[in-house]
Amino acid sequence: MTAPFAALDPRLAADSVAVTDLALCQVRLMNDATYPWLLLIPRREGAVEIIDLPAAERMQLMDEIALVSGALRDMTRCDKLNVAALGNMVPQLHVHVIARFAGDPAWPGPVWGKAPAQPYAEASRDGLVSALAARLSPARPPAG
Amino acid sequence: MTAPFAALDPRLAADSVAVTDLALCQVRLMNDATYPWLLLIPRREGAVEIIDLPAAERMQLMDEIALVSGALRDMTRCDKLNVAALGNMVPQLHVHVIARFAGDPAWPGPVWGKAPAQPYAEASRDGLVSALAARLSPARPPAG
Repeated sequence: MTAPFAALDPRLAADSVAVTDLALCQVRLMNDATYPWLLLIPRREGAVEIIDLPAAERMQLMDEIALVSGALRDMTRCDKLNVAALGNMVPQLHVHVIARFAGDPAWPGPVWGKAPAQPYAEASRDGLVSALAARLSPARPPAG
Repeated sequence: MTAPFAALDPRLAADSVAVTDLALCQVRLMNDATYPWLLLIPRREGAVEIIDLPAAERMQLMDEIALVSGALRDMTRCDKLNVAALGNMVPQLHVHVIARFAGDPAWPGPVWGKAPAQPYAEASRDGLVSALAARLSPARPPAG
C-alpha cells in the first residue's frame, strides 16, 4: 500500500536530498557535511505532531526510526544518536536522526542553530546517499 | 509486570521530580517553570539509545510518548510539542516531551542550553505534578 502523498515543505526540500522511501516515511539526508544527519518525513498530508498519526502509523514510525538509527550507527560508528521531532520552524512532521561524535562542532549541545550548514561535495554526497539507500531498502529481486 | 528497576541518573534526579510510573517509563517533570517539560525514562538498566530497547518496548515507548504528548498538549494548549531523545550529557535513555509556545524564551530554537532553569514555587510544582499524575494514571477502583 502506498501512503498518500504529502507535498514536501520547500525548506525541507532545499536543505536535504532524498535517500529512499520506506513504507511510511521518505528518508532524506541533510546537505550538511558537519554531521551525518537524516530526516524521516511521514508522507501524510497535514501531519504536524507525532500524535497526529493514527496509532498504527506511530508504530510504523518507531520501526522506521529504529531502522534508520541502526543503519546510521553502523555506518558511522558514532558516539551517540540524537532522535528528535521539533518542528518549531517547519511544521511538516519530520524526525531528525543525527549521528553525534564527542568533539563535533555542537557537542555536547544540540545541533540546531549552531554551525552554518557545510554542503557536501557532490560526489561524496551521492556516494553517501547510495550507501544509505542500499542499507535501508528492502532487498529486491534482480531485474531481467 | 513490573519492569526491572534501573537506577536513575543523579543529574536527572536532581533536575526533575517524579510524576508517575507507566508500564515502561517513569514520567518526571523538569523543575523549570520556563517550559512545561516532561521526561520519560524507561526503567531498563543500561539503555542508552532507543534501539537498545527490544522491539516490543520501543512500541511501548511510542505509546507512552503519545500518552504524555496528548496530556501535555491538552493541559497547556501549547503551539508545538518537541519530542527528543538526545542524551549527549546524560547517557541514561530519556525522552523529552516539551510544550512550546511561540514567543517562549528559546522559540523557535530548541530549549537545551538556553535560559537557566527557573525552579517552580513548591506549591505550583506540586499542583502540576498532581494534575499530570491524575491525567496519566490509569483509572483505579476506589479504595475500600
